Amino acid sequence: MITKEKIAEWFKHLQNDICTTLEEADGSGQFIPDTWNRPGGGGGTSRVLNNGSVIEKGGVNFSAVHGETPAKILTALNLDSAEFYATGVSIVLHPHNPFVPIIHMNVRYFEMSNGVYWFGGGIDLTPHYVDRADAQYFHATLKEVCDRFDPSYYPTYKKWADDYFYIKHRQETRGIGGIFFDRLTAQKGKQKTDIFAFVQAVGQVFAPTYTYFMNKNKDLSFEDQHKQWQYLRRGRYVEFNLVLDKGTKFGLDTDGRTESILMSLPPLATWQYNHTPPSDSTEAKTLSHLKKDINWIDF
Amino acid sequence: MITKEKIAEWFKHLQNDICTTLEEADGSGQFIPDTWNRPGGGGGTSRVLNNGSVIEKGGVNFSAVHGETPAKILTALNLDSAEFYATGVSIVLHPHNPFVPIIHMNVRYFEMSNGVYWFGGGIDLTPHYVDRADAQYFHATLKEVCDRFDPSYYPTYKKWADDYFYIKHRQETRGIGGIFFDRLTAQKGKQKTDIFAFVQAVGQVFAPTYTYFMNKNKDLSFEDQHKQWQYLRRGRYVEFNLVLDKGTKFGLDTDGRTESILMSLPPLATWQYNHTPPSDSTEAKTLSHLKKDINWIDF
Repeated sequence: MITKEKIAEWFKHLQNDICTTLEEADGSGQFIPDTWNRPGGGGGTSRVLNNGSVIEKGGVNFSAVHGETPAKILTALNLDSAEFYATGVSIVLHPHNPFVPIIHMNVRYFEMSNGVYWFGGGIDLTPHYVDRADAQYFHATLKEVCDRFDPSYYPTYKKWADDYFYIKHRQETRGIGGIFFDRLTAQKGKQKTDIFAFVQAVGQVFAPTYTYFMNKNKDLSFEDQHKQWQYLRRGRYVEFNLVLDKGTKFGLDTDGRTESILMSLPPLATWQYNHTPPSDSTEAKTLSHLKKDINWIDF
Repeated sequence: MITKEKIAEWFKHLQNDICTTLEEADGSGQFIPDTWNRPGGGGGTSRVLNNGSVIEKGGVNFSAVHGETPAKILTALNLDSAEFYATGVSIVLHPHNPFVPIIHMNVRYFEMSNGVYWFGGGIDLTPHYVDRADAQYFHATLKEVCDRFDPSYYPTYKKWADDYFYIKHRQETRGIGGIFFDRLTAQKGKQKTDIFAFVQAVGQVFAPTYTYFMNKNKDLSFEDQHKQWQYLRRGRYVEFNLVLDKGTKFGLDTDGRTESILMSLPPLATWQYNHTPPSDSTEAKTLSHLKKDINWIDF
């Protein structure tokens, strides 16, 4: 039987494995652990890497928290009271080299004392410069993982990511998307074990996928103009996370641990009024790719 | 009679006067105007200064927009439909020198076709390093303006600013506060002319107050550690504006002009995981002053 404790244990191992693999690929950076307790129950370990050779700032969070279900969830589910348990791993990595993309991954499990449970998660990529071959590789990798479980997963969760990682006030997607899913529970012939296996596969594909981009692009040469563009794109990342990301909003609203929630924010970001790259620039080309519904695999 | 057109015209002049005074005090920076139209009615002029001698990035916005009242306001006021008219000036200035404070000012007027109207506004100061004499000067100046109209204004609007400019998830005020007021309308012996006169006085005290700080502190010497702290404090400013500021949220939610709304964001900001200054540092001393309910005038 898949208990919440087993899921949390697996997530904890995933955090370790990912940190080890990222440290190897980085070459010099080390994830420093910071273990914390939640006043209402449970806690977690944030592992943060600063100023590595490839990663400028990265965080790999594990948490397993429990207690009285926040009022917002109770209201949404029309419940008077219930205990909850939530565990997950969440990651954001900001690289030095502007040709290495920003990446985000999250896998999570939530259950309540009334028997309700669900899994959620996703991986999405935010290149400062969109490279179509890299985008194809990324989406083909995710499709392959999804297809092992259900042919409907990739198209459904790819669209979900397009819709979720959309910066409405900029009319831009955050990056090239990926997959996003939430509230997956046993249904349509899928058991809890099947869903957990899918979530595990998503967690496991993260490290090889990102280290592929690290190794491939970390030594590409760049100029100051590319760094300036990277800082502007990081500004958009901040806008998404602080204005739109539901997890961030929920965490801050329910007195979550601020430093862990905002670990995703970049080491350095800029804002310029009405910045518009020249129409024939690689920066403008990237902007033209920050749209929903692009088929990144067949083009 | 005070018409909406007269109020808008006064605000437009205020924008000009403030830009002229700030340019003189800066010495080299120039506000570049960018005039825009709102698809639903009206428009505005954003005036942006980049890389002046004292101001690194500053924006002075004027707008006068009208049209069908946004659904959110209609719902809040229990109305089916109404035309609205809104005009105002809003300002945020980010200086180069970390010993010159960030400042924000906003004065605004809103009316609807059913006769409802109100004024709102405020000024608040966000020093990267809190200096008690500067804080005293700032609050005494605001108190003097308020006291000209009503002895209850300063204590009431000072507390309102403490509560409004509070970053709950950091348990910090954004800076040393100032005054904040909203929905001021004729009542308790005050006529519309009285309220407009108060709002005008707030608008007029902005330029002399900020140029006082520019002139006084612009040549104070600083090191890289002070710049690094400035960038971190700007990160907090971003957090307030994107997570908590009601005007920003309302603007983005109602398809306002993104570049004008987000003009307040800093030229460069950083985030560091769990940054904690040494307990005897000037940075730690500043943090200890980012609290509500400090009496800045008598200490």
